[in-house]
Formats: sequence, C-alpha cells, structure tokens
Amino acid sequence: MTSILSWLNAPCRPLDDIAAEAARQRQDQLTKPRGSLGRLEELAIRLAGMQGTATPSVDPVQILQFVSDHGVAAEGVSAFPQAVTLQMLHNIARGGAAISVMADALGARMEIFDLGIATDPGPVAGVRAARLGPGTGNIAREPAMTASQLAGALNLGRAAVEQALDQGAGLLICGEMGIANTTPATALACALLGIAPGTLVGPGTGLDPAGIARKTQAIEKALALHATSGCTPLDLLGRLGGFDIAATVGAFITAAQRGLPILVDGFIITAAALAAVRLQPATRGWMLFSHGSAEPGHRLMMQALDADPLLDLGLRLGEGSGAAAAVPLLRLACAVHAKMATFAEAGVSASGD
Amino acid sequence: MTSILSWLNAPCRPLDDIAAEAARQRQDQLTKPRGSLGRLEELAIRLAGMQGTATPSVDPVQILQFVSDHGVAAEGVSAFPQAVTLQMLHNIARGGAAISVMADALGARMEIFDLGIATDPGPVAGVRAARLGPGTGNIAREPAMTASQLAGALNLGRAAVEQALDQGAGLLICGEMGIANTTPATALACALLGIAPGTLVGPGTGLDPAGIARKTQAIEKALALHATSGCTPLDLLGRLGGFDIAATVGAFITAAQRGLPILVDGFIITAAALAAVRLQPATRGWMLFSHGSAEPGHRLMMQALDADPLLDLGLRLGEGSGAAAAVPLLRLACAVHAKMATFAEAGVSASGD
Repeated sequence: MTSILSWLNAPCRPLDDIAAEAARQRQDQLTKPRGSLGRLEELAIRLAGMQGTATPSVDPVQILQFVSDHGVAAEGVSAFPQAVTLQMLHNIARGGAAISVMADALGARMEIFDLGIATDPGPVAGVRAARLGPGTGNIAREPAMTASQLAGALNLGRAAVEQALDQGAGLLICGEMGIANTTPATALACALLGIAPGTLVGPGTGLDPAGIARKTQAIEKALALHATSGCTPLDLLGRLGGFDIAATVGAFITAAQRGLPILVDGFIITAAALAAVRLQPATRGWMLFSHGSAEPGHRLMMQALDADPLLDLGLRLGEGSGAAAAVPLLRLACAVHAKMATFAEAGVSASGD
Repeated sequence: MTSILSWLNAPCRPLDDIAAEAARQRQDQLTKPRGSLGRLEELAIRLAGMQGTATPSVDPVQILQFVSDHGVAAEGVSAFPQAVTLQMLHNIARGGAAISVMADALGARMEIFDLGIATDPGPVAGVRAARLGPGTGNIAREPAMTASQLAGALNLGRAAVEQALDQGAGLLICGEMGIANTTPATALACALLGIAPGTLVGPGTGLDPAGIARKTQAIEKALALHATSGCTPLDLLGRLGGFDIAATVGAFITAAQRGLPILVDGFIITAAALAAVRLQPATRGWMLFSHGSAEPGHRLMMQALDADPLLDLGLRLGEGSGAAAAVPLLRLACAVHAKMATFAEAGVSASGD
C-alpha cells in the first residue's frame, strides 16, 4: 500500500506570500476605511496567496459529492434507515436535494459519486459508479475498510481533484451523504484528538437520547477495537473512517499539493480535514472553513484545526450545503478586491490619521 | 408637521401567519433531517409570512443609498475629512465603492440619493439630488434638523420605497455614506436606549483614543442639549439624527406598512431601525438583520431589538455592504424552500423516530 499511496507524502504547494502581501497592500488602498471589510478582506488576501495572483477567483466552484454507506448503521446509530442513502443518491442526482438546488443556484459544478452504498443501484444518470464495496464494515466489530478499499477511496479523491483542475476549478468543496456517517466521523475525530466519545458525540440527523447512547457505545467499541497504540493517522482513517471521509482526505491533500483552495463543509468533512492535516500538516494552509455545524462536537474539531468558520447558521445537513452557503462570500470578497477603486483612482482622501 | 407626517402612524401590514405556517410545514416535508438547514429554514418561513406566499422571493433587491453630511464632523469626530462624503458620492455613482461592486455582483438595483452633502455637487450621473440642506446642524451645538428637514427626509424615504414597490422590489436594503455619521447614530441610540455614550461609542472609520474621547464629548453635549425629558422618538430623530438616518426611518416604516421585507445593515442603519421600531413597534416584524458590526455599540442596539444577525464578519463599512453580503443567504433560503423535493416526491423514507 505504501507505494500505491506514496503521493500522500508529496509536499503541498507553498502559499505565495508575495501575492498575499500585494493583496494586503491593495486592500489598504481601496476606498474604504482600512480593515472595514473584515473577513472579506482576509478571504481575498488568503485566496491571493493560494492562487498566486493579485485577482483571485473561486470560479468555477467544483463540488465533489461522495455518497456511501457505513456498516455501523447496523448498531442503530441513525434516526433514518440505511435505505435512505440509496434514495438520497437518486434525489441528489435528480436535483431534489438541498445541495442540488444550491449548486444550481450558485452555478457550481457538482460531480456525484457512488463510493459504495449498500445496494448497487446500477447505472444512475448523473452518478459516477466508483463502488468500493457494499458500504464499509461495521466499525464496532471490524475495520471500516480493507487496505485496498482505503487506497481506492484516497486515489479516487485524488483523481477527482485532478480532473477538476483540468477543467479549471477555482475552489474545491467536498460533500457527503451516507446514513450513519456522523458515527465514523466522530470515531475518527476522537481517535485523532484523543477525546472521549461522550465529549464529541451528537444527535446527527436527529437521534433521541437513547440513540445517542447507542451511538456513544458503538464509538467506544470501535475505539477500543481499532485505536490501538502505534496507530498512524492513515491506520485510523482505514479502520474508523468511511469511503466518503477517505475520498475527501485524498481530495484535500491533492488539492493542497496541486494548489486548489478548499472550502471545508461541516462535521463529517471537518473530520476528513483533520485527518488530512494529520497526514500532511501543510494542507491546513489551503483550507477555508465555511460554517460551524449545529452538531456539538464540531466546535472541538474546529478548535483543533484553529479554524474560525465564516458562517454560524445552525446547519447540520451535510452534502456540502454549509460550504455552498459560504461560496457567495468568497465571490463577493474576490469581486470587491478586484473591482473597487483605490483612493488614488477615485480621488478620495485617505484617513487623516 | 403632524399632518404632513400622519402616515407615520398608519398601521403596519400584518404578517401572514397562515403562509408562515404553511412554509414551516413544507420545510418539514423537504428531503433533509427536520431543522437541519437551521437559519435558512427560519428565513424562508419568515419571508413567507411577510410576502404571504408559499414561495417567497427577495428579487429584485432594492438598495437605497443615502448620502449626506453631518454638521457634527466639525467636532473632529471622524478619522476622515468631510470632503470624503462628496468624493465617495462620485465613487459610489461611478462603481468604485464596495457597495457599487457588491450591488453589481448581486444584480441588485441601487438608487443613490444626495440628501444634503456639505457642497452641492450639481448634477451627478446616477445620483438623485434630494438635498435637504448643506448637511445637518452640528448636534453638539444645535438640532440636526429643522422640522421641515425631518419631514423631508422621512417623506423622501417613503417615496423611494413606494417607487421601489411599483418596480416590484422583493427586499429593501438601506445604505448610507456620510463622514461622521456614527456620531449621530450613537447619540440617537443612546437617547432611545437610555445608555451613556461611553458605553455605546466606538472608533467608527478608525478613530484613535483621542478621537474617541472627542466623539464621546460631542455626544454627551448633544444629549445634554437635546435629549430632554418629554422628548418623543420623533423629536430625538430630528434633533440628534441625520438625513440618512431619518430617510431610512421613513423607508423602513413605509416598507412595513406596505409589506416589503427589510434587510437591516450595520451600526447606522440599525440606529434607524431602532428609531423606526420606537415609532412603530410592528415594524420589527418586517426586519431581518444581516450582520453584527465590528463597531462595538452595535451589539447593544441589536440586543434592544432582540436581533440575532445572520453574519458576523467584522464588517464596519456601512453603505449597506453588510446587508448586501447577506443577500445570497436569503436567496439560497428561498431557492431551497421552493425547489427541494419532499420526502413523498423523492420517495425518501422519513426519520424512523
């Protein structure tokens, strides 16, 4: 596996500090009090540093939608039956899901992957079959993935980003759909952060207290079984993660290696971001964080990533919907940065200070 | 004046509770865990109640940009010279200001008003001359407005909203530009809330500590002079406000009377919102709050309005820029509400709970 995945260790692209500094100086010349556009200024400066240009742009926005099942659903850790993953795959592809509507409204590109839902749906219009199996193993009893499934998921994320780059993508969003997937995300985050499940676990799609107790127990079992001493982050990803999470890790590391800005979605994708940063710390520099999830453990993951999200709207849907909601802020930041007049251009007096 | 402004006392349009409830029920049938779109759901439901329709839409978005000068600039309460108001009027009209770029990027309509800058600019392309005088009086020494100027500003805001409604507007944003205008906004808020200036005052466009002390003193003088016992909110608005603030009050009350949703910008516009709500409490039901300003006193005004803003991005520019930044969230909320599939339509199983 090491040789198949040797790309994981390739260095990330360095950020362009000169372009970022030029963008900072431009911001200070625009016709507004210095700093008065707050985080919109910061976004333009960071994107300039990532894209190595004075006029960054996040378009076209590429959403990779990873749909897969999770064996741990058998432990009764979700408020919805596992059949919903297949139903939602069709719904996303037909345009009826939240992310479908948002991607359309935003003019974002979306590619939908079946990474392995429990029942093979056969050909589905608009869905790329990339099945790694009929869902992951039940992490409360067995590893989520075999070594070859883990490599397959990582490589798939990588290939999807390379294709997006070939098509000129300016921003990467990964979304996910898969019943029970807050459970592997929580388990992985607990293992990576050394935090007890009771601290990180939450209701996901809407568990009642008994369901949360079952979920906590399942994660405790999984950690006892898999998070043994000497585990690498890659081991933990394969044993505790999901196809969606591993594909996202591969996508994020590739994006950072190839120089594509990443807009991180909520709970599950943040667990993947955490794993990516553990595997390749410089990946962090390529990440912007879209929103703080209503799933309570998200805050702890964000703290570990030193991330301050742009939005805090009580979202907890996944599918990349929180990241999609933040896309217009990035676009406005880029537009203002590129198109506002400077004090000199407009003949406006700068501060008398 | 009472008869000229009798419209101020006309009732606000009632919100449509039946449409709001229908929207709430629709949200619970959409293919997502109940409540998982957080404040995007709340936005769709509130807009449905305002617009009396199952499928609210905020387009076209109308921005009214009120530019005016403030006599209190003479007290040295701004980091910028007063000449900047005129310069920025030209800059906004030519497309170089932040709000110009944002309005263009959002496809929002913007009408720009010269309500009375210190120097009459003569005809300016794209600017409606609606001058009420060469700026307001210096509130540290005299009332901001005469009774007829106050009536003129309120009526102008009213007429602008009526015109926007005739043109089919779906959302109202008021913006403002005018050197020193955080000072009248702070003075008015202090008087309306019964809060000492030291608690509410902030750096505005970037005052140093000595400047903040001057600004605090100017507001203290103004309050001692004008905020006498028995003052009505309308008296306070005329004595302490600005042409921009009073026009916004007239616009907001008219919007609430005629049934046009309002998206409230930052510090100065929130002071106007506060005055509007004191004059007509039911105006509050027509307001959505876009962002929490970096200007420190904004938090207290928002508390008084029981308002929880959508964004918190450290903005402190004005011009309606914070409201503009939140427009895409309203659009996404409307799109998702109208276009997502229901569980029944998509054949997706609802929660097993």
